[in-house]
Amino acid sequence: MTASLNPDANSTPDPCDFTEPFKSPRGSAIRELFKYLSRPGMISFAGGYPSKDLFDRAGIGHAMDAAYRSDPVACLQYGDTAGAPALRRAIVRLMNERGVNREIDDLIVTTGSQQGLDLLIKILVAPGDAVLIEEPAYPAAIQALRLAGAQLIAVRTDVHGIDVDALSEQLEALDPVARPKLLYTVPTFANPTGATLTTARREALARLAMRFRFVLVEDDPYGELRFSGEPVKPVIALADTIPGASDWVVYFGSLSKIVAPGLRIGWSIAPPAITRRMLIAKQTSDLCTSPLAQETARFYLESGRLAEHVPVIVQAYKKRYEALSSALRQFVPDDIEHVVPQGGMFVWARLKGGRNAAELLKRAIEQNVIYVPGPAFYVHRADASSMRLSFAAATGEAEVFEGVRRLKLALASR
Amino acid sequence: MTASLNPDANSTPDPCDFTEPFKSPRGSAIRELFKYLSRPGMISFAGGYPSKDLFDRAGIGHAMDAAYRSDPVACLQYGDTAGAPALRRAIVRLMNERGVNREIDDLIVTTGSQQGLDLLIKILVAPGDAVLIEEPAYPAAIQALRLAGAQLIAVRTDVHGIDVDALSEQLEALDPVARPKLLYTVPTFANPTGATLTTARREALARLAMRFRFVLVEDDPYGELRFSGEPVKPVIALADTIPGASDWVVYFGSLSKIVAPGLRIGWSIAPPAITRRMLIAKQTSDLCTSPLAQETARFYLESGRLAEHVPVIVQAYKKRYEALSSALRQFVPDDIEHVVPQGGMFVWARLKGGRNAAELLKRAIEQNVIYVPGPAFYVHRADASSMRLSFAAATGEAEVFEGVRRLKLALASR
Repeated sequence: MTASLNPDANSTPDPCDFTEPFKSPRGSAIRELFKYLSRPGMISFAGGYPSKDLFDRAGIGHAMDAAYRSDPVACLQYGDTAGAPALRRAIVRLMNERGVNREIDDLIVTTGSQQGLDLLIKILVAPGDAVLIEEPAYPAAIQALRLAGAQLIAVRTDVHGIDVDALSEQLEALDPVARPKLLYTVPTFANPTGATLTTARREALARLAMRFRFVLVEDDPYGELRFSGEPVKPVIALADTIPGASDWVVYFGSLSKIVAPGLRIGWSIAPPAITRRMLIAKQTSDLCTSPLAQETARFYLESGRLAEHVPVIVQAYKKRYEALSSALRQFVPDDIEHVVPQGGMFVWARLKGGRNAAELLKRAIEQNVIYVPGPAFYVHRADASSMRLSFAAATGEAEVFEGVRRLKLALASR
Repeated sequence: MTASLNPDANSTPDPCDFTEPFKSPRGSAIRELFKYLSRPGMISFAGGYPSKDLFDRAGIGHAMDAAYRSDPVACLQYGDTAGAPALRRAIVRLMNERGVNREIDDLIVTTGSQQGLDLLIKILVAPGDAVLIEEPAYPAAIQALRLAGAQLIAVRTDVHGIDVDALSEQLEALDPVARPKLLYTVPTFANPTGATLTTARREALARLAMRFRFVLVEDDPYGELRFSGEPVKPVIALADTIPGASDWVVYFGSLSKIVAPGLRIGWSIAPPAITRRMLIAKQTSDLCTSPLAQETARFYLESGRLAEHVPVIVQAYKKRYEALSSALRQFVPDDIEHVVPQGGMFVWARLKGGRNAAELLKRAIEQNVIYVPGPAFYVHRADASSMRLSFAAATGEAEVFEGVRRLKLALASR
């Protein structure tokens, strides 16, 4: 008995009567690329993983030791469903630095921010409900909504994120009976486009949420990873200045990209009616997030090392981005164009001349380099020329240059 | 803004259009008792927590250190959605000792076994679907099924667990169109009754699952905590001897009661079609279970300390159970009768003379002792005289005696 993600692998008919979205579900297209990662010499622009070389190994190890020595029972016993109060206080302080003023009761610690979205979908989205999502978008958000049976409505984006004027027209044209329950966006250094929504658009988006009564989900795992340009306040902070708007904004934060994903520590900030229900949903989802991981995160945040370490990550990513951008301009100026991000982990690129990114990937794999073809990020009609290049996982600039040189070989091998 | 679990606390109408089960959800009745736990001098028979005095603090701390020193990146980076292969191998060996023969691909590491149930419900239960559940039952299972919109059908139990003859008649009487999707049971040292299903009933139950085509969920967090009587094989092991039956059995295991709940490490063992879909559901639920917690669990299991430590827990629980049982017989023989468990953490008791356990709880709280009134464990019609007494959390026999003496005072204070 083996567990393949390919539903066709099992030729006997399934005896169980699965729910509609799970009758023949597809696994993640990105995870299908994982099998190539272990190949000797493979250079990957594919992953959404933070760089393993940039973990503060000593600092996190020290926090783990200190937490366990200080109170082993707090690490080992069940904890509050909402999260350990001391960790929530540390996150409240972190959010204050981002311009967001909330109390610990407004905040739930989640098992990664992915769980925050899962809980919110449980309480808000019934099969058949309409949901708005920026396009292109984070594939696990698309998948989570699809598996909940949502009717996805793609929202147009440009280099500054969601096109709020187009969205406004789109909302006015919709049947009010089928109004969308929520809108999902990564407004800062988006996955996959790297785009950052302007302040004016953020405010307009919050007003649209209030006017059309949908929950605006601000997913913000990358916000601190800015390597150029001016900081922009989170949508939830801007919504606080618009009377009534913050009733409609839910913010998801995460330690995955600034501390370590292995902790699985994220958080949600939401209005009370939503927080209360997410807590009830969390009781039956996993009772509580690992107290061992929570105490480690708490001691790490309390140590003050994060403020010193984030600039280290940002400088490294800046260099890797610059290497990637300059390699693309140097080696493949006539074949690949790309958008310029101000932070995050991704470069959104496009093959010129209508070439197909999934086709090119086959030859790229022969050259021992991989990336994610754009269609994985689309809801309906994909731009088949688009591709996402992550510069985060590269071990250094030399590797980035070598990777792009291989892309050039793949392009030439047509 | 505060997050109370009482939906009536917020007097303004909710602006959001929540899904039906979340329009006015109730939080856990047991968690409502938590506020009394912090009272000075309170003695609790209420919790489902394992004893904090019985954690192998040194052993787990050592495993954590060894894991982090051995491979910090494995602890800090994202991991396999199915779980770390080395941990799955260790769990396969643990399951072999329980008489269950499976490969690592049949097994998913879950964020506590609670997540296993959550994932299974996602792939199997649509709103309105019929689901069978033993009664009385683990409240978070009842709640998880209710929040998924399931139509719950209670299955009668006695001192030997599910009454399979009654279940068989019940199934034959059901409309075949509305056949139940699954049946949930804790067959060994059940929560709350402490009952253990006999081997003959286990086999009959597996045959019923196959005949009536429902997924039989064997939730087994307490199975290793046997302090008297003869071991019984897990239902999943017995089903392997009945051709075709194992296609219908899903097993949930957990380290929460034998190592520590703070790790949030559980696992599912299921047929391939179910495992494949649970994996896809897990990708969108939390991507993966904390690799830091997984590596700690792996090093602990590989250390071999579990085999030495489980008997320590069992001996302590045996003594605490015996103290509780003898205190009940000594102090309140005419007021409280109880079932004799062969292991686990719970004594299921009943107030004689039709007295109400929720009413008594008010006076018990005045005497600084708490327990869980039975109705929390019922789906429809509750036995209002029943109550669950946990002996696990008591710090020792003297505390158990003092707790029962206070119950006697509460009984007398009517």
